[in-house]
Amino acid sequence: MAAEADCAHVIIIIAMKEEAAPLVEFYRLEPLGSSPFIEPSPMVAWRGTLRNGLLLHVVWCGHDERFGVNNVATTAAAVSTYAAVAAFGKPALLLSAGTAGGFGQRGARVGDVYLSTKCVFHSRRIPVSDGTLEEYGFGHFRSPPLAGLAAAAGLKQGVVSTSDSLDCTPTDMDLMMAEGAVVKEMECAAVAWVCQNLHVPFVAVKSITDIVDGQKATRAEFESNLHAASSALQHRLAAVLDLVAGRPLSVWARGPHATYANEREAEASPMSAHTSHDFKQGSSPWSGQRKSADSLSGNSILAIAMFLGMVTLLSRRR
Amino acid sequence: MAAEADCAHVIIIIAMKEEAAPLVEFYRLEPLGSSPFIEPSPMVAWRGTLRNGLLLHVVWCGHDERFGVNNVATTAAAVSTYAAVAAFGKPALLLSAGTAGGFGQRGARVGDVYLSTKCVFHSRRIPVSDGTLEEYGFGHFRSPPLAGLAAAAGLKQGVVSTSDSLDCTPTDMDLMMAEGAVVKEMECAAVAWVCQNLHVPFVAVKSITDIVDGQKATRAEFESNLHAASSALQHRLAAVLDLVAGRPLSVWARGPHATYANEREAEASPMSAHTSHDFKQGSSPWSGQRKSADSLSGNSILAIAMFLGMVTLLSRRR
Repeated sequence: MAAEADCAHVIIIIAMKEEAAPLVEFYRLEPLGSSPFIEPSPMVAWRGTLRNGLLLHVVWCGHDERFGVNNVATTAAAVSTYAAVAAFGKPALLLSAGTAGGFGQRGARVGDVYLSTKCVFHSRRIPVSDGTLEEYGFGHFRSPPLAGLAAAAGLKQGVVSTSDSLDCTPTDMDLMMAEGAVVKEMECAAVAWVCQNLHVPFVAVKSITDIVDGQKATRAEFESNLHAASSALQHRLAAVLDLVAGRPLSVWARGPHATYANEREAEASPMSAHTSHDFKQGSSPWSGQRKSADSLSGNSILAIAMFLGMVTLLSRRR
Repeated sequence: MAAEADCAHVIIIIAMKEEAAPLVEFYRLEPLGSSPFIEPSPMVAWRGTLRNGLLLHVVWCGHDERFGVNNVATTAAAVSTYAAVAAFGKPALLLSAGTAGGFGQRGARVGDVYLSTKCVFHSRRIPVSDGTLEEYGFGHFRSPPLAGLAAAAGLKQGVVSTSDSLDCTPTDMDLMMAEGAVVKEMECAAVAWVCQNLHVPFVAVKSITDIVDGQKATRAEFESNLHAASSALQHRLAAVLDLVAGRPLSVWARGPHATYANEREAEASPMSAHTSHDFKQGSSPWSGQRKSADSLSGNSILAIAMFLGMVTLLSRRR
């Protein structure tokens, strides 16, 4: 088996401009216009090389030309993913990033940011033939094992479930519960389908704006929390990007401080509790250091994370 | 306004191998392998130049590498569409072709083949903000006006509604009824989204395998009628391709014999009744002439169709 390459290039696919903006601003990414795609595609791309050497492309799915809204949901996300890989080449890692609903009964809280363990489609119901088409429908797109990364970057982990609808019918709820979903959103499984087919490592990073099984109305909760959740997303993405740069992804397969949403709360992990607290207080370790990617390189979180990654690597069982 | 170009290139996107095979065999199309796409994409493409000069690309969405099933539903169809345009250039017309369910209460019968007037997503429910996101969700992808083509090629016309599910929940049914859908399937609106964004003319051609609001189980009805409906699809597609080749699409905007599913039955149109009868009897005007595209060029249906097209063109009101 060939040695795994170090991570030198990451592509991030984002559905909403509001979700993309904090990341573009933080890294002062350069806009590429729509030229890398078939004209006149709606997608918008930005590029930057971080001081740690990582080449980063951020692709926003763009606006709908008739209704002036963000191109949310699976179709635009899947096309953007294929188009981005066609334009920029296969990255070492492709992320679907954005905001999402979370299941309170499975530990999700507003402001949490999740790393996917697996993505599924809860709205592809194809119960025919011998059951294989039904399983194809759900998708079952497993993410690479990145528990060490989640721990180091202050992320929870769980199953992310995708449909094209913001609402949630009883059928949707039954299927999500059966699949063990903790995050509900509108793009990830479609991006995962493309990545699986192109053999590109994929993981979802989703920031919780609203509690799907909570008391408040999803719409109002989503809108009031969108800005804060997008900011939290940017913080965690910056941590992820700094951690993965220049090392093989397999370094991050396991971590003693990984948190699993269905097993224990974030507070059980000293690392996660630390970063979660920082977010709530508005005093993230990154908060004073947003002007460039460089400022992240030397911080203590990274040193601890690298140590944990090495310990993990050395203790891996094959 | 620039003069509209004659139709010289058509791309057809098809989800199931069983649906693509009759067309590939009929035209003896040449396989291109997966090389025109990002390796290792699952899509499979064929190409041929018909004797009437039309360049034809047929793209099947391929097999799922894990479950061995056809890559049905919207994600694969949308990606295949973008990938096909990237690989082969913008065609004069792009079709989503395949089998579908039809609404009996709106005149659909097994064996009918429909040309879309509009495609919508009945499973993108996004009821937020000022209503624009909700309308974006439904999509409302209008097809070019092709009533003359439908009449000449023996096709019915109607609204095609798309979701990723083979089944039909009460919510789905309510939304399809409200949108005036006569055909229910799993790809068209996603293909239409890509085409609308790339400014490529798009229309769906769908052959009815089962009656969504009928008495039989959809699954059994679909499976027992798949072969016959795929054959009917190939007949109608051959008629469409022969009619559109070398002329602007606008020639086919109107036709005195166009049939609208919600207004009148196919039997009300002498042309549609003729071709419908031929299909049922297995004695289509094309049935003895399948060896190449050439054989379609001189037949009497085409002559009548061209005459109707000219009459239509001359009588158009602007």
